[in-house]
This record gives sequence, structure tokens and C-alpha cells, in this order.
Amino acid sequence: MKTSRRSVISLWLAASLTGPVLTGHVLSGPVLAGEGMYTPDQLQDISGDLRKAGLRISAAKLADLTGFPMGAVVSLGGCSASFVSNQGLAVTNHHCARGSVQYNSTAENNYLENGFLAATRGDELPAAPGSRIYVTTEVTDVTERVRTGTATLDPLERYETVQQRRKDITAECEVDAGYRCQVAGFYGGAEYKLIKRLEVRDVRLVYAPADSIGKYGGDIDNWQWPRHTGDFAFYRAYVGPDGTAADYSEDNVPYEPEHHLKVSAAGLEDGDFVMAAGYPGSTSRYTLLAEVENTFDWTYPTWTVLLNDWIDTIEATAPEGSDARVKYEALLAGLNNFEKNLRGQIEGARRVGLVDRRRAREAALAEWIAADSARADYGEAITALSALSEESAAAARTQFWYGNVSRPQLFSAARRLYRLSKERLKPDAEREQGYQERDMAFIRQGLQAIDRRFDPAVDKAQWILFLKGYIGQPMAERVADFDAALGLTAETTAEELPALLDRFYENTTLGDTETRLGLMDATPEALEASDDPFIQLAVAMYAYGFTLEQQSKERAGRALALRPTYMDAITGWQREQGQLTYPDANSTLRVTFGSVLGGSPRDGMAYLPFTTLEGITDKNTGEAPFNAPQSLLDRVAARDYGPYALKSIGSVPVNFLSDLDSTGGNSGSATLNARGELVGLLFDGTFESVNSDWDFDPRTTRTIHVDTRYMLWVMDKVDGARTLIEEMDIVD
Amino acid sequence: MKTSRRSVISLWLAASLTGPVLTGHVLSGPVLAGEGMYTPDQLQDISGDLRKAGLRISAAKLADLTGFPMGAVVSLGGCSASFVSNQGLAVTNHHCARGSVQYNSTAENNYLENGFLAATRGDELPAAPGSRIYVTTEVTDVTERVRTGTATLDPLERYETVQQRRKDITAECEVDAGYRCQVAGFYGGAEYKLIKRLEVRDVRLVYAPADSIGKYGGDIDNWQWPRHTGDFAFYRAYVGPDGTAADYSEDNVPYEPEHHLKVSAAGLEDGDFVMAAGYPGSTSRYTLLAEVENTFDWTYPTWTVLLNDWIDTIEATAPEGSDARVKYEALLAGLNNFEKNLRGQIEGARRVGLVDRRRAREAALAEWIAADSARADYGEAITALSALSEESAAAARTQFWYGNVSRPQLFSAARRLYRLSKERLKPDAEREQGYQERDMAFIRQGLQAIDRRFDPAVDKAQWILFLKGYIGQPMAERVADFDAALGLTAETTAEELPALLDRFYENTTLGDTETRLGLMDATPEALEASDDPFIQLAVAMYAYGFTLEQQSKERAGRALALRPTYMDAITGWQREQGQLTYPDANSTLRVTFGSVLGGSPRDGMAYLPFTTLEGITDKNTGEAPFNAPQSLLDRVAARDYGPYALKSIGSVPVNFLSDLDSTGGNSGSATLNARGELVGLLFDGTFESVNSDWDFDPRTTRTIHVDTRYMLWVMDKVDGARTLIEEMDIVD
Repeated sequence: MKTSRRSVISLWLAASLTGPVLTGHVLSGPVLAGEGMYTPDQLQDISGDLRKAGLRISAAKLADLTGFPMGAVVSLGGCSASFVSNQGLAVTNHHCARGSVQYNSTAENNYLENGFLAATRGDELPAAPGSRIYVTTEVTDVTERVRTGTATLDPLERYETVQQRRKDITAECEVDAGYRCQVAGFYGGAEYKLIKRLEVRDVRLVYAPADSIGKYGGDIDNWQWPRHTGDFAFYRAYVGPDGTAADYSEDNVPYEPEHHLKVSAAGLEDGDFVMAAGYPGSTSRYTLLAEVENTFDWTYPTWTVLLNDWIDTIEATAPEGSDARVKYEALLAGLNNFEKNLRGQIEGARRVGLVDRRRAREAALAEWIAADSARADYGEAITALSALSEESAAAARTQFWYGNVSRPQLFSAARRLYRLSKERLKPDAEREQGYQERDMAFIRQGLQAIDRRFDPAVDKAQWILFLKGYIGQPMAERVADFDAALGLTAETTAEELPALLDRFYENTTLGDTETRLGLMDATPEALEASDDPFIQLAVAMYAYGFTLEQQSKERAGRALALRPTYMDAITGWQREQGQLTYPDANSTLRVTFGSVLGGSPRDGMAYLPFTTLEGITDKNTGEAPFNAPQSLLDRVAARDYGPYALKSIGSVPVNFLSDLDSTGGNSGSATLNARGELVGLLFDGTFESVNSDWDFDPRTTRTIHVDTRYMLWVMDKVDGARTLIEEMDIVD
Repeated sequence: MKTSRRSVISLWLAASLTGPVLTGHVLSGPVLAGEGMYTPDQLQDISGDLRKAGLRISAAKLADLTGFPMGAVVSLGGCSASFVSNQGLAVTNHHCARGSVQYNSTAENNYLENGFLAATRGDELPAAPGSRIYVTTEVTDVTERVRTGTATLDPLERYETVQQRRKDITAECEVDAGYRCQVAGFYGGAEYKLIKRLEVRDVRLVYAPADSIGKYGGDIDNWQWPRHTGDFAFYRAYVGPDGTAADYSEDNVPYEPEHHLKVSAAGLEDGDFVMAAGYPGSTSRYTLLAEVENTFDWTYPTWTVLLNDWIDTIEATAPEGSDARVKYEALLAGLNNFEKNLRGQIEGARRVGLVDRRRAREAALAEWIAADSARADYGEAITALSALSEESAAAARTQFWYGNVSRPQLFSAARRLYRLSKERLKPDAEREQGYQERDMAFIRQGLQAIDRRFDPAVDKAQWILFLKGYIGQPMAERVADFDAALGLTAETTAEELPALLDRFYENTTLGDTETRLGLMDATPEALEASDDPFIQLAVAMYAYGFTLEQQSKERAGRALALRPTYMDAITGWQREQGQLTYPDANSTLRVTFGSVLGGSPRDGMAYLPFTTLEGITDKNTGEAPFNAPQSLLDRVAARDYGPYALKSIGSVPVNFLSDLDSTGGNSGSATLNARGELVGLLFDGTFESVNSDWDFDPRTTRTIHVDTRYMLWVMDKVDGARTLIEEMDIVD
């Protein structure tokens, strides 16, 4: 359940107020199977390693983004997927497509409970609104154009210039209708690439097994091994009759991708070469010590305490079975997962000695720099970047409570609306990212979604919780404008808070969806004249928010000058050790390779590389999430393996482990064998791996995949999806 | 933590009201390493299997109870231990000796926290009151004398006769001062053996590591693998200067056992032969289907619900940090463990398909019986025994709530006192077991212990909880005498209960220890005249209790005639399959053999056979129970293994797994290698094994041992217990 979890998490951690967030980066290991999220163009540089690890097709072929097999690998935005037929059939994780299953479910047709299989093409259902399939068609290096002349600018100007150029390049690219473009930064802004993607807007749900297969084990098994999740589902991409991207229409036709993957029904064994191609979201492998320390000494522990209180607050105000609880189930699940993730992170950091390792690595790098006076610039950049990291960490600590008291959903909506009204005064190209015409559909969806996620009593109880924390801070760390707007003084006690907030919930009209959407066209003056208390609060806090954002941009601007130099030092230092430096994940296409591999997550214990059909029966209690369909259990009891069994385990393999390097966004990634055939779908990491975003520990980091043999077995023996099997190229 | 947990558990499950409890017994597997708790005299019958499994000393030697090595194996009553020097030094589990460490601890000398090591013999501390070391000196078959002529008696008379003869034989044996005797029944009463044991009453604490070693992992790791518990401690047996058992005295001298074990400092490897000798408490391997079904369909699920409410009640009325909580910590820990155990039992039964397996086994046995008309008696006995099992199960269900509402501690004390006053009217030899002169010390200790475990408010809250359940039952299942005594009617509601109970707690004088002890000499008339409400309640319920007891005895009497026939069928049937039937555990000396063996407790996961020193460091958080002493962590970091490392794991082995067959009471059992040398101490089973009392599943049942190499390493490198090491015979 990687993507959904990690996305949720980044959301909590990202300051909701400021634009750019200083994300961090540390040192990679040597070019070994396991660690490394390589950009496709790096693959030729490590072709020897790939061959040695077992790859049987040429690295050059693999590096061709629009050739086979990479041309078949697509992004869903947050998840990865891949084409498996020449009729636009795309396979991804069940948890990546589940929103679309839910969207189409009704009391009569409960597809979550029963699964969904379109009997014919005409029965395929529109995916949830906003669903997209992005097919990368072109990657262009635009470093020169983005960076030229920015070194001499002052930091804020540097930041603004880089952002403006990225927006300009994006806009030029998107002149080509039906494409979505992105200028991605690599190595902390040392390189920029324009990535052009066909944006398929008519995505349809073809097949998803029931939750009792696709979500087997549910949140209990999340991040756990042994695992028995049938985390697969199928979409189909549709385009207009002329072959270009189009909105949903009955006239649309299946998209015919240039390449699609063959699906392997045989042969993956313990120790075999595997690689995964997908779109990992973000990692922090090159973060400097200051940020690591701040994160593990302050941020994560502080969050852990707050999260537990937060969960208690929601559970108390939205009791199980209440209407409010329905609206907060997803948030609760996210908070619980975040809490579990933080425990894993803190435990993992302790186990691998993260802080000490980072310190040792920086010392080693410093020694290398000191060994050659020509490297003096590196030293200066790192010193400045470390200071900047500390400055950012201090700012994040100060903003922690203000960030939290800014969470009420209608306050967020009001902030976004007022900001939009301001940005709309500018020409589209000059607007802040996220407020351009290209972003309007997403803003609208966000404002609509409040409907299903907002309950005033719960929202208020949460606000009170956050405010209690806020008023407990020293006055110097509080925000004068905010105190004034809310009527908070140094003497305000927790008991007085509820009464202070009543007027917000009693007098706001933002609870109404049409009102919110209608205000997307409002002028700043109109909003400033509004007597809606949340809008008044947003207006009152605008200046402060702007200041925070400018400070953040100024720091980001400094980082843009320093981080490339730092990464240059890393790259040079690692090269001397025969290592190839890979950039931190940034939601662009990456390849990771290694092998099918069990592990010893803890002393005295081992994870075996495969789970089996019989393991489902063993786990099955009949109660969700351990409630496999009786038809599946019957097939298992009958040992009806068909051609899908793996001899060495005496059963059909369900999930398997590898030492691949993955993170959120990798969910749904095609797992390929040495010949580039689909052998599985990456869908999670083990609990001992949640810390790998900071530090890849080859001893304990393991990625979890669903085996294509299990997928085919379910399709064949349980769900009767034989037409789909026939549509794919199954190879032995 | 096996013994303590299991003992606590049997306590909850045993009806507190009735004397004999119908305990059950099903079929064993073949004579394979792993399953089987053999009596020493059976060992010669399986000498071929033992040799094949790897035993290097003769089975005949092993069968000699008073020879080497069995003569060195002793019982602590509830735990096992063994002599490891000719000066009475005995090694057992830390958790078996911890009560003595606690007993001697003060705020100034916190031995639980710091560990205890007597610098000289003179510094050895008296063990907790009641501590005993029992050395088996003689085993005599007394079947003939116990059973002769009982077949023709009616059931109640049969039961009373058998009990009277067991008491008579015991009394004759105990004429020899300093000995404690026991007539143990085997195979459901088919055989009886008189076991004569020297009762060492002067037991002293010699050495126990700190809780942070001996209880490392605490309740969190209880029943878990991987494990890193230094669960060892040393006692010394003292006797009078003339060599006979004596109460504590400064003049006493160390007991010189005829035999003691050599301690191995080397060589145990994965797959090696191991055996354990100890005193397993009880198992239910031969229980009939009706009892298994009642237990898993009704008893355990009902308990699970009640336990959770019970735990909540204690936590609410004895909040953390309160004085009351101190008194209920042990009970809470016991309840939590019981709840965890039940979950394991229910899960295990589901996993192995216990009910189906039992049903299949009974069908197979029935088929064997039907195959030969000479076996008709077997069939009749089994039919009658099955009916009896169902009858007992029905009685247990009916008595469940009455048993619970009889739990208030002062009510229990009053019942015991009144019963004692009645029994004391009879000659000692005719009294009910547990009320003879030989039992007075234990009764006194029990009455004293209430002091440290009783808080009226908590006791009352628990009573209310149980009464709520009781009044929710149909009137037909309630007890008229009890309703009358408490003033309960069909209309009484839960809200009215607290007021009804006030008078008990306000007017009782049994809260005072001296009062309770003083009443041990009271006559029935004196108690009947008492105006103490708990004593009045005990008097009022005496007749009902007596009826229950008589009914229970009558059923037990029927079982005494039927079960031996059933076990005879089992034995004959298994013999035909080349299997030797072993009797259910009954706290007598047993031997189990097998090998060092990891396992796969669940699909996709494996337990490795050994844990290592480094695993302690990995687990260590600095917070109890994962707070190993810094001196230990330093030695680990320095890889200062001394001569105790195991090459194949590259470290000192801490704990290891085997496929031995064990249960509560086995704690502290000597684990011996093929030459009969001590290689470890048995101390727990894995969570997947808690169900093994009902059904030994070779796939998942694993026993956990502390390795002697870890014990010696701690003594040598951490605790400086070199004098003790020198006292023992260490062999390579």
C-alpha cells in the first residue's frame, strides 16, 4: 500500500502554507544490485553491473524511454502502471485503482465487495474523476535554459527566475494539446529535464478482484511480510477516434500503445534477476546531517505524540458507526498509517544508526575534499548548505504549530480561494504554480471533495486540539496576526477555546459546495468584503503567509546555488570509489534492479522469498481483511494450481520479496525478469524498510511484489477473466 | 515464561468450587523426535528411536531415575531445575527464582534491577517462603493397591475409595520425615505410581542476573521468537548437618546430591540431538471431541470476552500509579497473558484444524475397534466417556457464571475457612485433600497473601462485573441459594448491584490478616454464628457447593472406570501402528527428545534456530524490558565472545529453538545433549505452540531454550560470577 500511504504522509509533513519545501538528500552505496533508483539514461553506464546481475537484454535497449520495454511503463500520477496489450490494457495495483472501484460501487453493485469484471469492452466503467494515464513520449535536457545566469542573482530572484523558466518551458510544451509536461529537477537542481507525457483522460476500469483478494490483509498486513495480497487491477486507456487524448466519450477507442509488456507465467525463482520500472515519488538519500537530526530528534517524535492525540480526538468526536466517522475513515486510516510509519522510521533509524552513519559519511566526504585544494568550493558549499539546513529546520519547528492550527478545512479552502483571486490578477504564465489555468480542474476537485470529508464538530475538535498545542508555545513562537484574528492572548486558556471558535462554524457559508465553487471567480475585493469568518481569517493571514512563503523561497533560492555543488562533490567522490551516483527520487521514471531475495529482518528470524496459496488459507479467519472468497479457498484446498505452480515451493507463489530500491509512487511498477517480461507488480515494502528513504540498508530493505502467476491463477481459476488472459501475451 | 503463565491459567480455568476437575486427554503421533513426554521407564522401549535421533548414552542409563543424569533433575514445584555441582548448586530459570529475588529486594538493595550474586556461601540469601527443592528418590507402582475392587463400586464410592487409598499411601510414605510423597495417576487412572521425594526446605538464592538480562524482553517477548532472554538463576539446596531435610538454619550445610550435570560450553549446532528432563504440568492430548468442541466453541471465546472486560475494570478502578494497582499488577499481567494465550489457542486450533483432526482420529479409532469384535468393550467405554464429556461440559457452562461470582477474595477465604472447620472434625487421614495437616502451611500462606493482593474497591468492581454477567443468565441457570443470600431477584438490574454489595465490604472483618489466620482454628458453630457477611455467605452456600462437588466426584468416579479402557484402546491401536503411547503430563518427571530446529511458523516466514548477542543490541531501546546493562552492550560491541562463540553464527548463541514437547512446569528443565551434558534451560514455547497441549503440530510447535554458552558468557564477561563457573564441571 505504498503510494497511497506515502502520499498521505508527505501531505502531512509538507507545510501547507509555504510553496517550496526544502527537501533533502545523503550518499549512496556502490553500484550494487539493490540500492539505486537509476534514471533510464544512466543504465548504459552500469551495463556491466546489469549484465553481471543477470539482465539478458541490452542496457541500451532498456535506456530507450520510448522503446521496449520502457515505452510500456506509464504513470497514473502517484502510482505506476504498464501496458500489457496493444489495446491499451494497463495493469497496476488494486490499491491504485481502488478509488475507481469505489466510485462505481453502489449498494446493489458493490464492486469493492464482489470485485468487478467487465464482460465486454462496452461494459468497462469510467474510472474515478481525475484518473489519468501518462505515457512518457519525450525527455529533453533543459538544464542550460533553466540555469543560465542564475548563479549571480540574489536568492529570491534566483528562485523566481528558475520557477518562471520551468513554467515557461512547461507551457510551451503543453501547446501540443493532449500532453502534460513537467520540468523535473535532478541532483538538487543541477540538472533539469523536460518530460513530455501523453495525458490519457479517458481511463476505464476493466477488472479488479474483490477487496477480499485485492486488499487481503488490509491495514493489518500493510508494510508486513508474510503477505498474501492480490494487489492487481486493470485499466484501459481510451483516446479519440483520431488517436489523440480526449475526454470520456462513447465514441472513443482503445489507445494503441507502441509497446506493451509480455506477461510471464513461469519461472521466477529465489535469487533470480528482477528489475522494476516506475515513478518513485521522493527520497532523502543526500540530506545533510542537520536535517536528519532535526527530523529524528524533533519532527518525528513530536508528530508521534500529536498523532496519537489527533486519532483519539477523531475517534471521540466521530464515534464508530456515526455518519461523521464515514467522512473521517480515510483520514483516520492515514493517521494510523502515518503513526505506524513513524514508529518504523524511528525504529529503523535507531537500528541502522542513521545519525551516526550520516555523520561518518559527511566526515569521509570532508576528508576527500580536504585532500585536494581544488575541491575547496565543495567544502564551502557544504558548510553553507549545512547552515541552511539548520535554518530550515529551525523555521520548520517554529512553523509546526502554526501549520497545524491552519488545518481547518474551510480555512484551507478560504486561503486557497483568496490566493487564487490574487493570482488571477496576473497573466497566466506568471502565476504561482498550482494557480495556473492548467490547475483549475484540480482546484475545483479539491474544493468539491470537502463535501465528503468535512464534519463541523469533528473539524472544530481537531482545531481545538491543535490550538491547545499552539497556545502552549512561548509567545515569541506564536503568530501575532493569528492571535489577533482569533482573539488569543497570552492568558487564553484551553477551556476558553471552544467558545472562541463557535462563530466560525456558526457563521460560515463555505460548508456549502456551490458557494465554495462560486468563489473561484471572486475578486480579492469581494473576498475582502466578505463577512464569512474563515474568509476574513484567510484575508487577515495573507500577509503573514506571503512572508513565510518569501522566506521559504529565499532559502530555496540559496539551496539552488549550493545543492548542485554539493551533489557534484558527492558524484566526484563516489566516482573515485567506482560508484555511480543516482539522483533522489522525483516522480520521474526510474529503474531499480536486484534479485528475488528473502531476508533476515531481525536476529533469529528470516523472511522466505515467496508466500503460497496455502498461506491464504492459514491466515483466513473469515473476518475482513482475512476473508478470501470461498471459491478461492476451495481451489486452494483442491490444489488446483493449473500451470502456475512454482515447483520449489510446491504451490502457486502469491507475493515475493526482492532487494529492489523503491518508495511511494513505485506502487504498481512493472517488475520485470531478465528478458524484460512482466513477472510481478511492486506494491509495498516491509516494515523494516520504511526508513530506506533516508538510508538504504541492504540487510533489511525489502520490496514486496505480487507474483504474476498468482494474478493469472486468480483470473483463471477464481474470477473467470479468461478473455483478458487471452488479450495479453502470456509467455512461459 | 511458561510455568508462571500456565499455572496462572490453570487457576482461572479450574472451577474454584469443586474438588476434582475432569481433565481430558486424544491420540499421539508416532514415536518421532519432537512429540512425546515419556516417563523415564518408557525410554528403554524407545531406545532404538533415541539412538537413531542421536543419543550417545544408553537409554537404560537414562531410565534410572536415581542414577546419572536423571538423578540430577529436580522439581521446584511448578518449575524444574537440576543440580550442577556436588555442593547442591541448582540451576533453573530466572522466572522460576524471581520471586526469591523480589522477596530479598529492598529500595537500597534492588536485586531485581541490579541482579544478585552472593560473594560467598555465607552471603547466599534465603529463598522466598515456601520455596522447595524436591529430589525424586523412589518411584513405586501402586496401581494394584489403588484400583483393586473399585470396578464394581458405584461411581461416587469408586472416586472416594481411590482418593482415600491415594491419601493412605501418601501418608505411609511421609512417615519418613523430610520426604514429600505423591500418588500420581497415569493414562486417566489406568496406572498409579507413588513418587517419593526428598523435600529440601532450606533453599537459598545464589545468583540471579538483573531483570534487564534475566527478563529481557519481558511480557512483550513472552511466547515470542526471536528471543533474547537470559532466563537462568541459581539456587543452592541446604540440609541439616546430618544430611536430612531441615528448615532454614545457619547450621545447615549444602546438600550433596548423588548426581549432578556437567555443563557444556561448546558444540551445540543446528540439527543436534537435544532432550529435556523436567516436570511438565498437564496436557490434554487424549481429550475426546466433545470436550475439545466445548472448549474452543464456548469456553475460550466466552473467556476472551470476559477477560477484556475484566482487564478494563481493573484498569479503571486501580489506575496506573495508584497503590491499588501495585496489588493488582500480577493479576493484570496474568489476565493479559491469559488473554494472549487464548488468542494463540483459538488461532492455533483454527490453523491446525483441531476439531476436524480430533474427529478424524476418533473415527479412525472407531474403525479399528469395529474391525475386531473382541474390542467391543472399548467402543462402549468411549461412547460412555463421550457422553460423560458432554455432561461435564454442560455442567461447566452452567457453573461458569456461578464460579465467577464466587471470586471475591474474602468470600473465597471464608469458604476455605468454613470448609476447613468441617474437615477438621474428621481424622486427618479421612479429610479431603488440601485440608490435611500436611496442607496447613499452604492454607496459611494463601490466607496471608490476600494482604498484598486485595483492595476492597477493586474487588467490588470485579464482583459487580461478574454479577452483571450472572444476572444476565436465564433463571434456570442461576443458583437459588446464591440469589437468596445476595437478595437478587429476576428483576434485579445492573444498576442496583453496587448498593447490594456495600454491606459486604463495610461489615467484613476478614480484610484483617490476623482475623483470617485466627479463624483457621474456628469450629463450624463459631463460623455459623459469625455476623461477618462473607462468612455468612460461605455458610449459606456450603450445601450448594457440597452438591456441586459430589456431582463432580460422581462424574470423576465414572471417568475412573471408563478412561483406563479408552486409554487401553488408544495404546493397543497405536501399538499396531508401531507407536508408543505416552501418558498426558501430570507434573511427574518426563523426558522429551528431538533436535535443535528452526521452523516456519507461518507461510513466508522462518524462525532461525539461534539468536545472537548482536540481536540484543538490535532490540535494545534503553527502556525496559529492552534495557540490557551497558556493560553487556559494551562487551557485545567489542565482540568479546571469549570461548563461547558458535562459529556457524559468528557470535555467542543466546537462545535456541528445538522441536521438543513441553508445557507449563517444564520451565527450568535441563536441556541435555547426546552425552547428557547441560546445553541449555528450557523456558518457553513460541506463540504458535500454545495450542500444543491439545495437539502437537510438528510443523509449528517449538520450544525455546536459553543456551548455556550465553549463561556462561554473562557469568564470565558481565556479572563476574567466576567462582560459580569454577564450582561447576564445564566441559567442551
